[in-house]
Order: sequence, then C-alpha cells, then structure tokens
Amino acid sequence: MKDIVTVGIIGAGRIGKLHAHNITRFVPTVRVAGISDIVINESIKEWAGALGIKKVTTDAMDLINDPAIDAILVCSSTNTHADYTMAAARAGKHVFCEKPIDLSVAKGLEAVKVAEEHTVKLQLGFNRRFDHNFKRVRDLVEEGKVGDVHIVKITSRDPAPPSPAYVAVSGGIFLDMMIHDFDMARYQAGSEITSVHAVGAVLVDEEIGKAGDIDTAIVTLTFANGAIGVIDNSRKAVYGYDQRVEVFGSEGCAQAENDTPSTVKLSNADDVKSDKPLYFFLERYKDAFVDEISAFADAILTDGEVLVDGMDGIEDMVAALAAGKSLKEGRTVTIAEMKVELGL
Amino acid sequence: MKDIVTVGIIGAGRIGKLHAHNITRFVPTVRVAGISDIVINESIKEWAGALGIKKVTTDAMDLINDPAIDAILVCSSTNTHADYTMAAARAGKHVFCEKPIDLSVAKGLEAVKVAEEHTVKLQLGFNRRFDHNFKRVRDLVEEGKVGDVHIVKITSRDPAPPSPAYVAVSGGIFLDMMIHDFDMARYQAGSEITSVHAVGAVLVDEEIGKAGDIDTAIVTLTFANGAIGVIDNSRKAVYGYDQRVEVFGSEGCAQAENDTPSTVKLSNADDVKSDKPLYFFLERYKDAFVDEISAFADAILTDGEVLVDGMDGIEDMVAALAAGKSLKEGRTVTIAEMKVELGL
Amino acid sequence: MKDIVTVGIIGAGRIGKLHAHNITRFVPTVRVAGISDIVINESIKEWAGALGIKKVTTDAMDLINDPAIDAILVCSSTNTHADYTMAAARAGKHVFCEKPIDLSVAKGLEAVKVAEEHTVKLQLGFNRRFDHNFKRVRDLVEEGKVGDVHIVKITSRDPAPPSPAYVAVSGGIFLDMMIHDFDMARYQAGSEITSVHAVGAVLVDEEIGKAGDIDTAIVTLTFANGAIGVIDNSRKAVYGYDQRVEVFGSEGCAQAENDTPSTVKLSNADDVKSDKPLYFFLERYKDAFVDEISAFADAILTDGEVLVDGMDGIEDMVAALAAGKSLKEGRTVTIAEMKVELGL
Amino acid sequence: MKDIVTVGIIGAGRIGKLHAHNITRFVPTVRVAGISDIVINESIKEWAGALGIKKVTTDAMDLINDPAIDAILVCSSTNTHADYTMAAARAGKHVFCEKPIDLSVAKGLEAVKVAEEHTVKLQLGFNRRFDHNFKRVRDLVEEGKVGDVHIVKITSRDPAPPSPAYVAVSGGIFLDMMIHDFDMARYQAGSEITSVHAVGAVLVDEEIGKAGDIDTAIVTLTFANGAIGVIDNSRKAVYGYDQRVEVFGSEGCAQAENDTPSTVKLSNADDVKSDKPLYFFLERYKDAFVDEISAFADAILTDGEVLVDGMDGIEDMVAALAAGKSLKEGRTVTIAEMKVELGL
Repeated sequence: MKDIVTVGIIGAGRIGKLHAHNITRFVPTVRVAGISDIVINESIKEWAGALGIKKVTTDAMDLINDPAIDAILVCSSTNTHADYTMAAARAGKHVFCEKPIDLSVAKGLEAVKVAEEHTVKLQLGFNRRFDHNFKRVRDLVEEGKVGDVHIVKITSRDPAPPSPAYVAVSGGIFLDMMIHDFDMARYQAGSEITSVHAVGAVLVDEEIGKAGDIDTAIVTLTFANGAIGVIDNSRKAVYGYDQRVEVFGSEGCAQAENDTPSTVKLSNADDVKSDKPLYFFLERYKDAFVDEISAFADAILTDGEVLVDGMDGIEDMVAALAAGKSLKEGRTVTIAEMKVELGL
Repeated sequence: MKDIVTVGIIGAGRIGKLHAHNITRFVPTVRVAGISDIVINESIKEWAGALGIKKVTTDAMDLINDPAIDAILVCSSTNTHADYTMAAARAGKHVFCEKPIDLSVAKGLEAVKVAEEHTVKLQLGFNRRFDHNFKRVRDLVEEGKVGDVHIVKITSRDPAPPSPAYVAVSGGIFLDMMIHDFDMARYQAGSEITSVHAVGAVLVDEEIGKAGDIDTAIVTLTFANGAIGVIDNSRKAVYGYDQRVEVFGSEGCAQAENDTPSTVKLSNADDVKSDKPLYFFLERYKDAFVDEISAFADAILTDGEVLVDGMDGIEDMVAALAAGKSLKEGRTVTIAEMKVELGL
Repeated sequence: MKDIVTVGIIGAGRIGKLHAHNITRFVPTVRVAGISDIVINESIKEWAGALGIKKVTTDAMDLINDPAIDAILVCSSTNTHADYTMAAARAGKHVFCEKPIDLSVAKGLEAVKVAEEHTVKLQLGFNRRFDHNFKRVRDLVEEGKVGDVHIVKITSRDPAPPSPAYVAVSGGIFLDMMIHDFDMARYQAGSEITSVHAVGAVLVDEEIGKAGDIDTAIVTLTFANGAIGVIDNSRKAVYGYDQRVEVFGSEGCAQAENDTPSTVKLSNADDVKSDKPLYFFLERYKDAFVDEISAFADAILTDGEVLVDGMDGIEDMVAALAAGKSLKEGRTVTIAEMKVELGL
Repeated sequence: MKDIVTVGIIGAGRIGKLHAHNITRFVPTVRVAGISDIVINESIKEWAGALGIKKVTTDAMDLINDPAIDAILVCSSTNTHADYTMAAARAGKHVFCEKPIDLSVAKGLEAVKVAEEHTVKLQLGFNRRFDHNFKRVRDLVEEGKVGDVHIVKITSRDPAPPSPAYVAVSGGIFLDMMIHDFDMARYQAGSEITSVHAVGAVLVDEEIGKAGDIDTAIVTLTFANGAIGVIDNSRKAVYGYDQRVEVFGSEGCAQAENDTPSTVKLSNADDVKSDKPLYFFLERYKDAFVDEISAFADAILTDGEVLVDGMDGIEDMVAALAAGKSLKEGRTVTIAEMKVELGL
C-alpha cells in the first residue's frame, strides 16, 4: 500500500495557499507536487519554491494529467469547481473540492456522478465537520450519549459582514453562509433534512438589503428521523466568530461552546472578564483545515469513505435553496418539493 | 401612604399555598388576611393557623367583599380565573392572577377590561420575568449593552412530561408551556410578536401524541421592532429544568445559563463533573415567586405599573394560539390574522 | 419526641437579629421565646414584637433560667461567650455559641468541659461548614470521590478591610479571619492539623500594620493523616468575597468556586463579562446561617452529634495561635508544641 | 539585517527532535543546519534527511565550530549543558539551553558568565513563560490590571509520577519539577524570591520516598517587592496535567485555568461532564515550545533581550535548593543565606 498521496492544487488564492502550507507542515501523508493558477507571477513562484513545490503552472490540466499526481485539490473560483472536478475524475484522480461544488445543483450533481462513474474519491471542503468541538459532539451522539436525537441547534455568526459587492455574487446568505450549517445539521442529526422554514431580516447593513440579501436569519428544520432543528445566522457578531452546536436527545444534551485565545479571567471591581471567541474561521478552524486534508488522504490510502462526499454537498445546496424559497414565499418548503422543482 | 397590602388568596392548592408561605416569610409589605378554597378541611385550617391567616372560607366572595382586604390573589383553577378577577375588580380590589387569565381570549380580554374600568392593578403570574438571570439579561438590554436587538433565543425544557391526562386538558404545549416563553420573548425583545411559525413532534411520549398534543417544538418569531427569535421546548430533559435565554444585538450578546445547586466540580480519571441544573420550577424560580408578589405590592403601594399586566397575558395567548395554528396548517401565521380570527 | 426547640437569644446585635429573623422565616423546628441585650430600647422591643418574640429582657439569666427554653444562642460580645455558655450549660440548656468561644483558649476549654459535664449540646458558629458548595466538596471527599486526601487549598479574601480600630481588638488576622479557614481545613481534610507555617505582609492598609497586624497571609499546614494544605487570606479583594476550596487526592480533585448573583454573561467587542462573586458573608452564607441553626435543632431533637462542636473551636484557636507564633518567629510551629505552651 | 537564524542542535533525544520538528514546521525565521548525538544510527539519519537537516554528526563541536551556524540548541543530557553552552559561547554562537543549565549552581553560573563575556544570547528552556495562558496573565499584570501584586499562586501537578529510577537521579522534586514553578513565580511576580518555606510528603508512591524524595509539596514564597506566594506540586493528578496560575493584587485577580481538548459539555441524568485538562506537557505546551524558539530567534535577529536568560536559571535553582533545605530543616530559608552557602 502507498503511504503518501501526491496532490496538485488548482488555485493559488487564499484557500489554495492555506492547504499548501498546512500539507507541508502538518500532513506527512500528503505531498504537494504542483500548483496552478490562471496568473502565475514571481511572488507565487517564490512562495512555491519555499514550500518545495516543483511544478508551478498556469494550466490546471498540467496537474490533472500528471501521472505522478494521485489527487487534485480544487481551490479555484466557484464557477470552475465542477469542471475541474469532472476533468480530474476522468483522469482517474481523486478530488478534494472546496464548497460549493457549483452554484447550479444540476451541474454539481453531474460532477458527483462523473466522480462516481470513475470510482474516485470526492470530498467536499466542509471543514467544520473536522472541528474538534463539533466532532466531539458528534462522537457523543454516535456513542448514544444523548440517546435519540430530538433537537439540533446551531448558532453561526460571522464577526463582520462581507462587502455588498461580495454579497451580490455570493448566492445569498443561505448558499454562502448557512450552507455550512445545513451540512453541520445533517451531520449532527445523522439524518437528512425533510423541510425548512426561514425567517430573515436586514439588521446589520442596509447595503446588504439593497443587494437583495438578508444578514440575519433563523431557519427551522425537520429531519427524516423525526428530529427537529434550528439554525441562526448573523453576518455581524461584534464579539467575534460565534460557532456553537447543541444536540439534545432522550438521554442528554451535548453542547459545544466557542474556542478562546486563552482560559484567563480577570476579576476586578467591575466584573469578571474573559476572552472573546477566536476571531474568524482561519483561527477557529485552523486545525480543522489540516484534519480534513489528512482524512482525505486516509480515505485514499485505505480506500475508505470520505466524511463529507459529493452528495452531501448536493443535499446542503438543496436545503439552502429551499430556505431561500421559504423566506421568499413565507411558508415551509419541503426538500421533496424542492428536489422536484430542481428536477432531481 | 399605606405601607402594607392586605391580601386574600383564592385557592389553597400548591400555588396558593406557595404564595401564602412566601408572603409570610419573605414579603414584609404584604399580609395574608384570608384564604378560600371550595373544600376546606382540618389540614388546611391548621396550616392557615400556623401561618397566622385568620379567615379561612369556602366562599371566595368572603374575601372579595372583605373591606379589610386590598388585593386578591387568584390561585384557583384556570376556568375560574377570569370570573374571580372581574368580581375582585368590581369590588375595587387589585388582582394578582395566575396565568392564564382564561383559556378563552375573549373572556380573558373581558377580565382585563373590567380591571381597567375599575382602575385596579392587574398583574399576571408570569414569574419568569422576575428570575434573577432573565432580569439581568433584560437589564443589560435596557442599558443598551447589546445594542439593537437582532435575535432572541429561548430554551425551555421541563425535566419530565406531565401525565397524558393533564396534557388532554392543558390546552396543548403552546398554551400550557410555551406561553411562558412567548411572554419572555416579548419581555426580552421589548417588542410585540408579529408572526410565528411552529414545527413540532412527538418524541418524548407517544401518549402525548395520542392526546392530540406534541412534546417537542421549535417556534420562530418576528417582532415589530424588526428582530427575529426562536423558542425551543421539550417536555423532558433528563438533566433537569433547562431554562436559558440569549439576546443578540448590534453591540453584543447577553446569555443566561442555568442555575445549579452548587459550583463544585469534580475532576477525575474520567472527566470533569459538575452539577445539573436545578430540578424544576419550584427550585429555579423560588425567588422569582417571592419577587413577583413583592413587585405587585410595590405597584399598589406606589401606584406604579405592574411588570406584567393583563394585556401581556392576552398577547401571550394570541401568540400561543397562532403557534398552534401554524403547526396545524404548516405555515407562518401572523398575529394580525390571528387577532382578526379571534375577533380582537 | 419533641418536634420543636424553644430558644433564647443572648445579644440583639447584627448576628443575634440575623438568627432571630432566619429562625422565624426558615426554621420551623425552632421557636424564639426570648431575646436579651444589655440595652433594650423601643426599637428592639418593636422589632421583637413584629417577630412574635414574647420575652425581651436586659438580663440574660432570665432566658437561661426560663424552664420553657431548651437552648440558648450566645450572640453577645466575645468576652461574654464562655461565661454565658457555662451558665446555660449549668442550667441544662443546649448552647449554640458564636465563634470564638473565648479569646483565651483556657477559658474556652473550660466552657467546653462544663458543657460536656452537663451533657448539653454545644455547637459553634462556624457557618461555612454549612455552605452548599463546601458541603458538596466534603460530601465528595466522604464518598471517596477524591480518594485519599493529599492537598487541601483554601482561598478566603474579604471584599474590604475592617477599620484599624476593629483590627486592634480583633485578635489579629489568624484569630479573627483565618480561624474560619483553619476550621474549614480540618473539616475538609477530615483530620487534625499537626503544624503550621505562616508568611504574611501588610499590603492592603498601612494602618493595619500600625495596629500590629498583617492584612495578607499564606499559611501552610500539615495534617495528622499525612495530607498537606495551604490557606491564603487577604483583607481586600476588590472584586468581592473570594471563598474557594479545593481538595486534591489520589482519585481526583473537588473544587468549589464562588457564587455569583446571576449566571449571565455579556459578550461584546471588548471581552466577555460575567458577574463578580457575591459581595460578603451575609450574601454568600445566607443559607448557611439558616442551615447551621436547623442542624443544631436537629441535633437536639434527635440527640445527634453537632457538626462543629466545642473542641473544634479549641483546635481552630490553637491553629490560629500557632500561625501567629510562626509568623513572629519565622519558623514552623507544631500544634503539639503550641498545646504544651498553652498548658493543654 | 539577517532574517533567518541557522542553528545546530546538540542532542537528538525527545526534546531535540521536538525542537527540530517545530522549527521545520512552524518557525520560518530558523533553519536547522545540523544535529549531533553521541550515537547516530540509520533511523536518526533518515529522520534528519526527511527534515532536510544536512549535517548529522556524533561530534557536537562540528556544529559549534561550523561558521554557517549562528546558534546552538543544547538538548543533550543535563551534565553536558554547561560545557556545551560555554564551548558554543566561546565560538561566538548564541545558545538556547534546555533547563537546568547544570545541577551545580557554580558551574551553571560559570556558563552564564562565559556567555556574557562573549556577548552571546543565552536563553533557557523555561517554556511555560511562553504558554498562551500564563503569558496572558503576565500581560494583564504588566498592564496594571491587577494593580500591585499581593499573592501569586501556582498549581502544578503531573499526570503520572516518573519511575523511581528517574527520581533517584532527578535532583528531587524541587530541582526537577518545581523549578518550573519558581521560574513562573518570579516571572508573574515581576520580582525576585527572597525566602522559601517547604512542606512535603510521600503520598503518591512509596518508592519515591525510598529514593529519598517526596511527591507532594507546598512551598510558600516571599518576594522582594513585598508580595507573597505559594506553589503546590503533586507527581500524580489522575485527571491530567494541572497547570494553573493566579495573580492577586490591589486592583484585581487574574487566573489561568487549564486547557482542554474541547469545549464540549454533556448534560445527562447523572451530571454535567466536560473534558479533563490536556494530558501532559507535550500537549499543553505544544505551542509554547514553538514560541520559545521563535522568540529566541527574534532576540538574535533584533539584538533584543531574551525572555528567560541565564541568571533566571540560576535564581530558579537557588530557590529550588533553598526549598530542599527548608524541607530538610523544617524552617524558612532565605535566598540570601542560600546564596552565601553556595558562595554566590
């Protein structure tokens, strides 16, 4: 059995670079053989050289067709995710694809099917499933420590809103932000979502409203196993990235609180002060970004299952689209109805 | 100005006795002059004697018409709340009425109007507004410490379900249990509810389902001030009474956690163990039951406003009824539409 | 068997009044028949009347010799504690005596012996043993949850220093303040102290130093069972009354944290704020003051043992005196040597 | 100015390898050019090759005399620390030396002086000063948030005792274990220790007693700035590595709690369970081991001060020796007297 996975990374933006750094430092089972980007300048070459990445190219196909490469990390812009995934799968490469797999469910599904046909692993970048806190909650659930799941609650609030320009092309709060929480809800419930109902408001930034989106939302969920759930999102929590999960069941309740920079508290004449949560996703999910790549490599090396596969991404998108429809129409939207509408 | 309020208590059941005990021990501004119940036995006489309650009667009107009595505490069965409230108001007595004021909104409203017409104070027994934790959250909100309110979250779970027999006559989870949370939501948001959407399930006890009710529910809310909210209820949390509130806004987030019997934690080879929440409402709201009566007395003695008045009770009921309708019809129900339906 | 204990209270100062109030409100097994003080004015008479206390007298012997009285609560000034205890014991009354039993160990011991000879219960007012948190720690220790006790740690800091005038007659920090902690240490360790070593400093208030005392101290302890311990005291913690206990052993560690007015935390752009500890002993030990009297009554009614008896008070004083000697002489002082010096 | 420090590592044991790994992964300002050990086998060569370490030698002087090397990390056995430090200093190399610098204070001091004479940086491996929690406490102290320091409290307990064989050559609990806490105490107090008093016991493992050592100890401290302090040590905390620090002062109290693997708590019918502390120093001080090397490199590159220098190591040793003497002689031992005895 091989003991190392050689990868090529498509996209040398923030997330592509993050994965390259993480692999070099922390993932002994993976080696980065090459990286591509539509623009390659001296700075990227230098950076790649420092990390020992030999191949630096403007043509992603150079990586996809490289016989020395086992797997492709698709870290390019969203509109290219599905195409690169399919090209890589057709070349027999395993694929780790950043989320979402596409803004179109149909095209995303096509990519998933191509990966299946070519029997390559396809893992999506839902990094939160690898967070130490959320994984601990899920472990407790799987060990039966909360009994039958009755209620799943997820709080997910960003420290600061994106620019209105970003919002305009983001697909909206449900597809851009809450999609992570739909994935987390399905993961924690151990069951598929059957219906959603959304309420939302523009409370953080009027420009977001002008861009046709909302910045504050609560979505209730029903699951196939009978459980119910709720997700709340805000684009702006002044105290930092608020990422909490709670699973309540017949035998108990597991709750994950935020991580903080330190455990120190200061008691003085005013009150007792402790640290705010870690600032944002790069801080909070630092280790999760590493662990998702390690797990991807393990799945390849042991021919095991990936923790979050292509169909997870499709299900998450359908839930997000249903939430959007619910908000617009002021009613509960079933996943079944949404799938019919999407022709799935 | 008078410095003491003389009260008569109608109903010598659990809650009537609790108030009598509390007043005797902890509320120097109130004196219990009499108590009535439809059945008076030796045990009640003895109990009243021990507390120094002089008048013990089977006729509530003996109290209502007693010129030495300033105010009536209505602690009898729900179906008599409105009638006693009106009778007391007509006799010029201030009224503290246990919730709900009636199972019919129309009759409840009639009672509220009679109290208004006779310019007597009418306070309802929504004791949670007087809880030290929830009051602290509200104080922070009022002081502007969370800024504009964006999201109100309430968790409210009982330690054990009531009997199916009780459930059958309770009015259902929304009127019997979540009504406290609708009241808390309005209190914390500082704004009226404008619409509700409910999801629910029978996950705790099938007998509750057979009685036509649910035992697990999540309701999302919109408020007149633009905020949104969510309440989750379960009839059975094995770890005890779970009563938490969170108010999130533009400047911060205030969270009230559960109370526990002690602050002690035990670290051993397995894990770190700490106390479960206080068992149920008698433990958790022990002081709140006292404080609501103190506040009622203060409102009378200073001719001030009560913290939770008759119209609060009406609004809470409308929200509960709307939630029931939402669950039944699978759609968002506005408070406006519910009021039209109720002829309000 | 009798089911109620009738008591007379000697001393109508702050602590005597506190006990009278507590008994009236919370201790159904005790009845206050009379109260004495060297000065009785109208205000005290009125207060006693309101509580239903029939006998109000300037002569403590009126209570001690009253055949209707079962037990005496000695709440007068320290220099009279031993004398009243002995007089009451000789009259066959059980005695609850505020700490210390005397500033002289010899006289305190005499009082203890007189109580023993007349086979009356003698309980001292070390209220902290009845604190819900510290009792929980002790219960865990007794249940074997921490295994063999290795280390006992006690933090005890007051919110504000007493006046230098008080300090001058207080007996010093060890006899006045840390004596509570010596008692707690013996209680938690379940073993007698065998030696002490003290370090101390004047860091809070120079006037305390001028009065010949210190305001900050750390004392290490050895126990007969082999365990070791440490107590730290400060006369001024700006954040309030800091009362923590930790028992570490072969199987685990039990820790009691401070109590707070609420569980609420506020997260904002600066940090996460939570409540300071309860302000001082009246707040923190509110229930403990009640429970110590209940327990005293139970010991009388069931002819059981008191939780903190006269010899506990003597042992605590010897430890305090040894600590003073240790500080003065800059060396470890054994309890055995101290007892020899005291002629015990 | 140079922007990278080239180091040679003497000693390829656990700690030498840890530093090599950390540097390679996390410290971009440092490059490992070579490593030496008295025994070099294939496994070490392979390991070094994988990390890109070019020079692997059995002769430490190969590194010390290598003109391409700027600094030496002394990670060999304790008895060689001082000699290698001096040799490196004489060759003009900066030195990072694991603690203790020697078991003999005199020889340690000689090494410190040689480093001073050759004006090279000398940093000792007291990694805890770089811990995120303890550093946060110190920052608060330096910012004046606790006011004048009155009390420093340190709890330091290992998860499991070392072998009696190790204990026999360790120098004893004060030199081997508590020396870290003396260093932490001096760091947090911002002041030198002036006297110590120790109590101790053999409670964990009788074999440790037979080896002439103790396994449980409490040491009180006085500081030059007037503050007092206390350290407690145990060789065995069944719940894991217990590393807490508290600094109490005129304006407040800063407390560092343990780190845990997750923030998750599980509430069930028994109690509320949360994670034990991280297991041992490799887990708890993972980042601190990295940060101490980064800081060493920064001190070299900017010609700044090291955070923990040679004289810190000497002071820590003197305190440890004084504690041993105090335990043996049952009395307070001043640092001044200890220094006289040591000829300092």
